[in-house]
Amino acid sequence: MLFAKGEFWLAKLVECIPNFSEGRNKDVIDLLVKESKSVPGVTLLDYSSDESHNRSVFTLVGDVEGIKEVAFKLCKVASEKIDMTKHEGEHPRMGSTDVIPFVPLKDITMEECVEISKDVAQRINEELYIPIFLYEESATREERRNLAKVRKGQFEGMEEKLNLPNWKPDFGDAKIHPTAGVTAICARMPLVAFNVNLSTPNVEVANQIAKVVRGSSGGYKYCKGIGVMLNDRNITQVSMNMVNYEGTPLYRVLETIRSEAKRWGVQVVGTEIIGLTPAKALIDSAEYYMQIEKFDYNNQVLENQLLN
Amino acid sequence: MLFAKGEFWLAKLVECIPNFSEGRNKDVIDLLVKESKSVPGVTLLDYSSDESHNRSVFTLVGDVEGIKEVAFKLCKVASEKIDMTKHEGEHPRMGSTDVIPFVPLKDITMEECVEISKDVAQRINEELYIPIFLYEESATREERRNLAKVRKGQFEGMEEKLNLPNWKPDFGDAKIHPTAGVTAICARMPLVAFNVNLSTPNVEVANQIAKVVRGSSGGYKYCKGIGVMLNDRNITQVSMNMVNYEGTPLYRVLETIRSEAKRWGVQVVGTEIIGLTPAKALIDSAEYYMQIEKFDYNNQVLENQLLN
Repeated sequence: MLFAKGEFWLAKLVECIPNFSEGRNKDVIDLLVKESKSVPGVTLLDYSSDESHNRSVFTLVGDVEGIKEVAFKLCKVASEKIDMTKHEGEHPRMGSTDVIPFVPLKDITMEECVEISKDVAQRINEELYIPIFLYEESATREERRNLAKVRKGQFEGMEEKLNLPNWKPDFGDAKIHPTAGVTAICARMPLVAFNVNLSTPNVEVANQIAKVVRGSSGGYKYCKGIGVMLNDRNITQVSMNMVNYEGTPLYRVLETIRSEAKRWGVQVVGTEIIGLTPAKALIDSAEYYMQIEKFDYNNQVLENQLLN
Repeated sequence: MLFAKGEFWLAKLVECIPNFSEGRNKDVIDLLVKESKSVPGVTLLDYSSDESHNRSVFTLVGDVEGIKEVAFKLCKVASEKIDMTKHEGEHPRMGSTDVIPFVPLKDITMEECVEISKDVAQRINEELYIPIFLYEESATREERRNLAKVRKGQFEGMEEKLNLPNWKPDFGDAKIHPTAGVTAICARMPLVAFNVNLSTPNVEVANQIAKVVRGSSGGYKYCKGIGVMLNDRNITQVSMNMVNYEGTPLYRVLETIRSEAKRWGVQVVGTEIIGLTPAKALIDSAEYYMQIEKFDYNNQVLENQLLN
């Protein structure tokens, strides 16, 4: 249990969802899991690894001091064990710890989480010599809000990019860590990592469909997505981050993907939720599919009554 | 809030969902609402009234002593204000308080809830002179488990039924309350009251479809249902109780209804959830519609992590 009964109500809770560039080597992943469990006040809720992406996503919840400590410790282990000069995988990446997002969960503001992200960024840079970009709510300028723009060029392109006048890191000199690369850190709202698997091995189809649904190329405002190959299954996937599931609901994007896939003679074979999702993201979708009239999420879901 | 912070963890919680035979007279409904809020340790979570059914469903949560007290007090008000000799409505009914189910919610067993149901049944009979049948988990014999069988004959047929050898009440003499009728009380698992609205005013279609999906006539084991007319909308409805949403999921029954309705040239125009639903009942359905692979409800829903 996260806290002894009774203490629960007193703590501010922060969620942290670091992504590491290791999805295949079980020994390294186990080390990261062990480190996740080594800080009092922090619970590892979930982790998942994707061999095609060669990436792992960890979900932790903790109090402010604990979450800052575990974020640093994990980044340190990753920098020691993951060598980006040897990394290849389907998912874009620039560092052994690629991203560290902080999400306000209970009794804590976005501003406080922005402060947390900056404290952790400073410590990682000073002690591990990894340059840091701040993004999303922590971004120091508008063009850095978007992770895709920050990460563009990936690990291989970072050495050169950091020397461009516009891309000086937020923390540290314009010098990548030779094996750990660069890390992006932010505070943001909860997102849902949502993948849609397609009945085709042609990644160009997934790319085209991703382009249709993602906001940056004319699709849904709160949808970010790319096409990826799943080599182990010989199919492709539209891999997305739903950054505001109320503004852009999951079902709407799924149905659009279904519809677009038909044009290619392709079907949706399944979907995935990676890591945690707020219940409402799925219940809003159930409401759509089941055509529920006048459903009142706050008052009709039993568990919500127990928490309030 | 249900409890002061810190006390929450100490209390056993019971849910109580009394159904009253009044869905039109706002003054009477308001009196019942006021009574619901009059007992410390009890919270009225939800209530809804249906004019076609001429019935209201209240959802309360409380500690053991509080829930017993509020159940009695509500039954008393209903017996004083609702005259069954003048009652008509679409939903089967036998008493001003038609049913009082108790559901274990937190740190309490079904056996304890059966004891609660019997205590309340005894008090209602002794102080209000209403005969009581125990049903579901509280039933004193197998044939009384099923509410439909207990209630068959409805208010108008109860005077005669109580005198049959097999239908002597569990509490009280074989004598109905002249205006409050008979009440059924039980302990049971959480159910979801789920209605499916059809694009036809022909109640025979709704009846046929209800017959297909309900367990008792050959359909899904954990589905109880009837066809009803919604006069205010000039359409019909399959009105159901989903008594085990894991054994018989909501989406499955909905899709069967959709399919059967086609045969009549009829469509599903919408659905309703009445009162509260456990989150899982809807999330399981989202999982089906969205084809989510390997979803782990206990570990991937964010709010579940905060409660454990």
